[in-house]
Amino acid sequence: MSIINNRKLQIGVIGGREESDEVLRAAEQVGALIARRDAVLVCGGLGGVMEAACRGARKSGGTTVGILTMGDAAPANAYVDIVIPTDMGVARNAIIINSCAGVIAVGGSFGTLSEMAFALQRGIPIVSLHSWQVDPSVMVAESAEEAVGMLFERL
Amino acid sequence: MSIINNRKLQIGVIGGREESDEVLRAAEQVGALIARRDAVLVCGGLGGVMEAACRGARKSGGTTVGILTMGDAAPANAYVDIVIPTDMGVARNAIIINSCAGVIAVGGSFGTLSEMAFALQRGIPIVSLHSWQVDPSVMVAESAEEAVGMLFERL
Amino acid sequence: MSIINNRKLQIGVIGGREESDEVLRAAEQVGALIARRDAVLVCGGLGGVMEAACRGARKSGGTTVGILTMGDAAPANAYVDIVIPTDMGVARNAIIINSCAGVIAVGGSFGTLSEMAFALQRGIPIVSLHSWQVDPSVMVAESAEEAVGMLFERL
Amino acid sequence: MSIINNRKLQIGVIGGREESDEVLRAAEQVGALIARRDAVLVCGGLGGVMEAACRGARKSGGTTVGILTMGDAAPANAYVDIVIPTDMGVARNAIIINSCAGVIAVGGSFGTLSEMAFALQRGIPIVSLHSWQVDPSVMVAESAEEAVGMLFERL
Repeated sequence: MSIINNRKLQIGVIGGREESDEVLRAAEQVGALIARRDAVLVCGGLGGVMEAACRGARKSGGTTVGILTMGDAAPANAYVDIVIPTDMGVARNAIIINSCAGVIAVGGSFGTLSEMAFALQRGIPIVSLHSWQVDPSVMVAESAEEAVGMLFERL
Repeated sequence: MSIINNRKLQIGVIGGREESDEVLRAAEQVGALIARRDAVLVCGGLGGVMEAACRGARKSGGTTVGILTMGDAAPANAYVDIVIPTDMGVARNAIIINSCAGVIAVGGSFGTLSEMAFALQRGIPIVSLHSWQVDPSVMVAESAEEAVGMLFERL
Repeated sequence: MSIINNRKLQIGVIGGREESDEVLRAAEQVGALIARRDAVLVCGGLGGVMEAACRGARKSGGTTVGILTMGDAAPANAYVDIVIPTDMGVARNAIIINSCAGVIAVGGSFGTLSEMAFALQRGIPIVSLHSWQVDPSVMVAESAEEAVGMLFERL
Repeated sequence: MSIINNRKLQIGVIGGREESDEVLRAAEQVGALIARRDAVLVCGGLGGVMEAACRGARKSGGTTVGILTMGDAAPANAYVDIVIPTDMGVARNAIIINSCAGVIAVGGSFGTLSEMAFALQRGIPIVSLHSWQVDPSVMVAESAEEAVGMLFERL
């Protein structure tokens, strides 16, 4: 193994804290599929879609990064490997997007919309799964498999 | 005059850097009308809608605050009174929204969308003038007068 | 009056929340002297040195800007004219420094030290009044008059 | 292996970009010793002390996190595993400190001083190795071994 880092791809999963079981199951699958592609999962590190995606990634042996709104690590969900407590409130949404090569939105409300807006501004590939569709450049998927497949084709 | 501050209302104007003459004229009027209501205008402090709104406010004797993406004051437009160079890139969009009691979106693209998303999350009144309409709670106006009138009714 | 803005100088006052009466009196004088020089006072907007400096500036007819750690305006002291609730915790210390042409430290603890470090990094003039002296470039003053005098000579 | 995360300790290494060979060697050793203690190394992700520490950690099989001032990943040093491009300038110094249980300063200038100030404010253990000593609570070490030993005794 070279000590020079061939850094793994970092993929964002964004979505809300309160979601239906269907959306949470989709988020867990998305997390698992990202891990199986050997990418690092980046998210907001809290509950709901973030926790489900981290759990999926961990179950599949992946690495997870949680970039928190608050300034201490305690609220991170139990499946976060690397925790970044920003203490920057929702401004951390911009940091999540800067940390990803592409992003999958699963459900979500206005916080997710702000992240999608930042991703559109940066021009990185975005897939929407049961989430916002505010621009034609956002790819719409119907399943976790399709979402991850679509995203990786564009990276 | 009491030295204790009866702080003036702070109103945000958000919108893009590259806009049509019609949108820029509307932004200038919005700035003027905010100043005439004796409120402080808060914006991103750069060109386009931000500059037009500041010019309008200054012409009507108002005070303007420019919260910049960059870390130095030089790029602020010529009509900014108070300049806050955040050096935080688009994360400053969250600071603009935190600094306002209500916000008027005039034109704008993805940056404006991120600000509207933050405003929706905070639950402050939002008026859209030739701009995004992503939620039923966003009030839609057809003119600068209507936009400012609608907003102040809700404050 | 031209509507083109000949922006006023923005001067920072940094210092702690819990200080002796002597330090608070000095801070109030510093605020007053900044206002008499027709500069805008920028500070953290909360209690202690920040409140004393704002009171001094307001008593002398000046304008004050409070850049808060929290995301809502309520905790701003009663003498803040323009309030910027960043919701960025102590990272707002960097924004305060970016917003000033020069800075006077009055008392203060580790938060003030972080601000002085950012000011040293930016290379803006710094005066220490009963505060940190971590670098030879920091000017040391014994009174409010001397502090403000020293700073304005360097701007 | 449980999928519930028993999160590894995150340790910060702070220090300057331009340092003597002696300081850089010390930083590399510090990185290696942190990795051997099975902790994750958190740093600013750029050159100088940051790069040396990451190289040391990677050579010893550790994981490294680089929290960048800029908004894209390209300037990260070659030994960073997880890259967080904040686009927040020096405000990211606060994020580095929030992300660590303890921190070792190796050399460094004003940026390092701001990080030490934030660490003092948070109350986490700090070791200074050829670096600032601004408070009696900062532990002073003479070697990389001593620095890492002192820090882990306090965690």
